[in-house]
Amino acid sequence: MPRYALQIEYHGAPFVGWQRQTDLASVQGAVEAALARLEPGPHTIAAAGRTDAGVHALGQVAHCDLSREWEPFRLSEALNYHLKPLPVAVRACTRVADDWHARFSATERRYVFRLLMRRAPATHDAGLVWQVPRQLDPELMRQAATHLVGRHDFTTFRSKICQAASPVKTLDELRITEVESWSGPEMRFHLRARSFLHNQVRSFVGTLERVGAGAMSPDQVRGALEARDRAQCGPVCPPQGLYLASVGYPEDPFAG
Amino acid sequence: MPRYALQIEYHGAPFVGWQRQTDLASVQGAVEAALARLEPGPHTIAAAGRTDAGVHALGQVAHCDLSREWEPFRLSEALNYHLKPLPVAVRACTRVADDWHARFSATERRYVFRLLMRRAPATHDAGLVWQVPRQLDPELMRQAATHLVGRHDFTTFRSKICQAASPVKTLDELRITEVESWSGPEMRFHLRARSFLHNQVRSFVGTLERVGAGAMSPDQVRGALEARDRAQCGPVCPPQGLYLASVGYPEDPFAG
Repeated sequence: MPRYALQIEYHGAPFVGWQRQTDLASVQGAVEAALARLEPGPHTIAAAGRTDAGVHALGQVAHCDLSREWEPFRLSEALNYHLKPLPVAVRACTRVADDWHARFSATERRYVFRLLMRRAPATHDAGLVWQVPRQLDPELMRQAATHLVGRHDFTTFRSKICQAASPVKTLDELRITEVESWSGPEMRFHLRARSFLHNQVRSFVGTLERVGAGAMSPDQVRGALEARDRAQCGPVCPPQGLYLASVGYPEDPFAG
Repeated sequence: MPRYALQIEYHGAPFVGWQRQTDLASVQGAVEAALARLEPGPHTIAAAGRTDAGVHALGQVAHCDLSREWEPFRLSEALNYHLKPLPVAVRACTRVADDWHARFSATERRYVFRLLMRRAPATHDAGLVWQVPRQLDPELMRQAATHLVGRHDFTTFRSKICQAASPVKTLDELRITEVESWSGPEMRFHLRARSFLHNQVRSFVGTLERVGAGAMSPDQVRGALEARDRAQCGPVCPPQGLYLASVGYPEDPFAG
């Protein structure tokens, strides 16, 4: 059966997350249902990142196996037709080797987190940012972030229900940029790693927000990391500012 | 009675437009209802631009008269509290002179229009852009736009139900920029004039899109303008890409 890689964008609000759950709306379930309109199912697709409820994607990657040969562009068009009116869209589609795997072939995940600093409730960006009603100090937050980059035991920043075999991961990048969007001053967190622990990004951002607000020092963040103690993590921030931005593979399947 | 100027942001989707209509949800009605929670009404507020159904605002300006003295920041906070959960937010509030008028004191209106060029349906930006499934030629569109700038009889680009006294207006700017947003390649139209005719911006953008698609030449746009004939206008584009960006006054009431 020919295998296809799909680059998928979605708005996380209406879903319980990527992963299929009986009787609940999931992104995986939505894509599998669209596939079933093209070829009899059941279809089971695999994705690079199992995003939580409310988390968005700009470039989630999944693969599917179909019995007949599809021209990739036609396949993406047919899926988008059947996905309507859900906020899920296939942005690119390509034929891949039979042993290519959206999750296991991936070598890098990139996330972006949007934090909007303003008091008046966001209107156009409601549900698309985490809004905090205060100014934060980006320099303190950047100092704290340097302690998190590299290979560490991230037990402090890991959900208790995380299923990863080990809490030791290598964080390749945690960069904080300042952007003036239409909605106001934003901080954007750019994170990059081979893989992430459950709730790791939201644990980082929630903790760094406390640093920016002056409630925690950069040194305390280093101490919290070294303590390997979940109780020393700042509050886990809400999901709606988080985007799975893109997934890296040894060769970009969507290039060209 | 002290008068206050309000800078208001809103998402246009749930509303029939700015203007109050009996039994229908309008932005004006929403703000007046919030005012009535602070002081017994009825309240009647005036705004700089009467946006249509589905049109957004980043910086609409309105004024209201209240019987007691409000500290402006407290007034904006109280209004935002009572506006919840509607997508309407007061971003700034200030005390103004009793004869200051949000509409009649305004000397300039600035609109921005977002046009997203991509095939896959937008998810995060659904309802916030006009999406066209094709690439457009920005240079042809800019050539056509030059014919529209300046003082003209804009009968061609004016809704039949427009109530303005004269179709002669001066368009001070129609600038087209290209932006790569998260959703894909966008064209943004930046328009500036003392005042606009009804549907003027959407008539411009719908016509310029036809130019960018190669269906109409820049010269034909000049011809259409000179004909002063509504039938020569391109299709009026949908409202969801349009934003009332800001309003100009001889002195910015919100400065400082």
